[in-house]
Amino acid sequence: MAVYTHVSSDALREFLKAYEIGEVLAFKGIAEGVENSNYFLQTEKGRFILTLYEKRVQEKDIPFFLALIAHLCEHGFPCPGLIADKNGRVQGVLEGRPAVLMQFIEGISVHTGSPKHCEQVGNVMARLHLASQGFSPVRANALGMSSWRKLLQVCERKLHAYPHDVGDELHAVMDTLEKNWREDLPGGIIHADLFPDNVLFRAGKLEGVIDFYFACNDSLAYDIAVCMNAWCFTPEWDFTPDNARALLDGYQQVRPLEKDEIDALPVLCHGAAMRFALTRLHDLINHVDGSMVSPKDPMEYLVKLRFHGGINNAEDYGLNL
Amino acid sequence: MAVYTHVSSDALREFLKAYEIGEVLAFKGIAEGVENSNYFLQTEKGRFILTLYEKRVQEKDIPFFLALIAHLCEHGFPCPGLIADKNGRVQGVLEGRPAVLMQFIEGISVHTGSPKHCEQVGNVMARLHLASQGFSPVRANALGMSSWRKLLQVCERKLHAYPHDVGDELHAVMDTLEKNWREDLPGGIIHADLFPDNVLFRAGKLEGVIDFYFACNDSLAYDIAVCMNAWCFTPEWDFTPDNARALLDGYQQVRPLEKDEIDALPVLCHGAAMRFALTRLHDLINHVDGSMVSPKDPMEYLVKLRFHGGINNAEDYGLNL
Repeated sequence: MAVYTHVSSDALREFLKAYEIGEVLAFKGIAEGVENSNYFLQTEKGRFILTLYEKRVQEKDIPFFLALIAHLCEHGFPCPGLIADKNGRVQGVLEGRPAVLMQFIEGISVHTGSPKHCEQVGNVMARLHLASQGFSPVRANALGMSSWRKLLQVCERKLHAYPHDVGDELHAVMDTLEKNWREDLPGGIIHADLFPDNVLFRAGKLEGVIDFYFACNDSLAYDIAVCMNAWCFTPEWDFTPDNARALLDGYQQVRPLEKDEIDALPVLCHGAAMRFALTRLHDLINHVDGSMVSPKDPMEYLVKLRFHGGINNAEDYGLNL
Repeated sequence: MAVYTHVSSDALREFLKAYEIGEVLAFKGIAEGVENSNYFLQTEKGRFILTLYEKRVQEKDIPFFLALIAHLCEHGFPCPGLIADKNGRVQGVLEGRPAVLMQFIEGISVHTGSPKHCEQVGNVMARLHLASQGFSPVRANALGMSSWRKLLQVCERKLHAYPHDVGDELHAVMDTLEKNWREDLPGGIIHADLFPDNVLFRAGKLEGVIDFYFACNDSLAYDIAVCMNAWCFTPEWDFTPDNARALLDGYQQVRPLEKDEIDALPVLCHGAAMRFALTRLHDLINHVDGSMVSPKDPMEYLVKLRFHGGINNAEDYGLNL
């Protein structure tokens, strides 16, 4: 949810001279995309999203993200198409920032997913995993397990606002995660942030996936673990096995999981909860005032972390595996 | 620029059952309207703005604002039409807040107005002043001159961040304003916040005026004074007589000013600069973190305040009067 960079009408007009998309009818900053500034753009020829990449996205990573989006579109994956300018370029500069114009995908995000939503999310994630198998560029997971210990150290100075033993608890969980982590699982491109905000539905049907700016190479099953955290808890942070079963069923309709991946789900889910607990703590510390971004509550992921910590094997989730 | 209240997809669906506007195709929080939460809504039948009124707008004032907008629309004034539900109601409740659906007006706001923009702004403001003459409800200007002394006292505790004599300076200006203020000028409904953000242009032509949530009864010429502050300075805060001339010319094409109004322009402009200096200081003090609102820089209006303080009579602005 962000508008970090203000785009003036003059700068917009200048930028759009390179595109053949007709006269501008409307242009509004929108509350979408935590990492970047996003604008809704309506012209005579259609609706678009204009993204300005902010400092949290490393400029060297942008070609990876754009190539991935183009690759996924070519393979029929439902995500926004990139709009090329008259010279065939998809990346320009606007208000001093890298800027990209994309198709606008209709649909709205759900607040709390139902099993029907989760089944479609699992399904589309498996399609992403398969569609990106022929994609050769590589990007390491900058927020993968090996980054968490350092992130925890940075966050510690914020932990004084939490019960005094949270720091100890997180260090103990880190010890467990480092001990039990699995690096030998089938890998590939993962979305790594497939939260409800990033999935659009229309009349209950999944229309598209957006926001690929955490996409990277990692264990495919870690993507499922992120979704089990993001989609399979109630607003009161209680686990919903029905959603998790539907998520896994939807996934396995496209790509059946290996036994190793199933066995690793508890540690991967535990790790994914750690990742979001830590980045939310970190965002609180580094909150940019006036960025139009509301920091999210880290406590949600501390609760989920404890839940996954109590799971001994995948069967404890109540899945049909 | 605001989204204070999050609207879930379920709550939206429930709310829209009362309207005949077809299936929802898109719904995005937008960075527009400092006082309220605003969403862009696209359905099969068109584009709309959904506004949720937040605490800064007093609930008792909403019927006044909605009646004014309806009156202006009926009189051909370019502003967004209100969408009535199946029962003919224009005000509903969504996520516990008063909510109103309006037409979406095409066009974009300019960042820095040219004389051609200013002429149209003057013109449309005079049309607003004439079109609202038959509008009988009354709303006092809650941010009129009589409110400023108290606002200044509230702001004083923030002034320590400014050069030490700013507090003294503001009190001295308040003394001057109270001494020279004019209460005997032609009055009526004014917009009171006709800043560039609230005027939409398409291909250089004014398409509409939005955001009537400061509208009130006050001296008509005070509305011009607000616009002279909002439209007639460069981004470096230098006065631009060309813009001011165009603003006044555009206004007088529709409603010629009386001599008293012209004579009062310096004190009204001085007062309008005080109003925005004070409310920006006040907003800094009371900034709601995470509201997606960036507080604006009060220093801009302290500079404008000094400029108007050096104007002895309307001719000093370099106007053709």
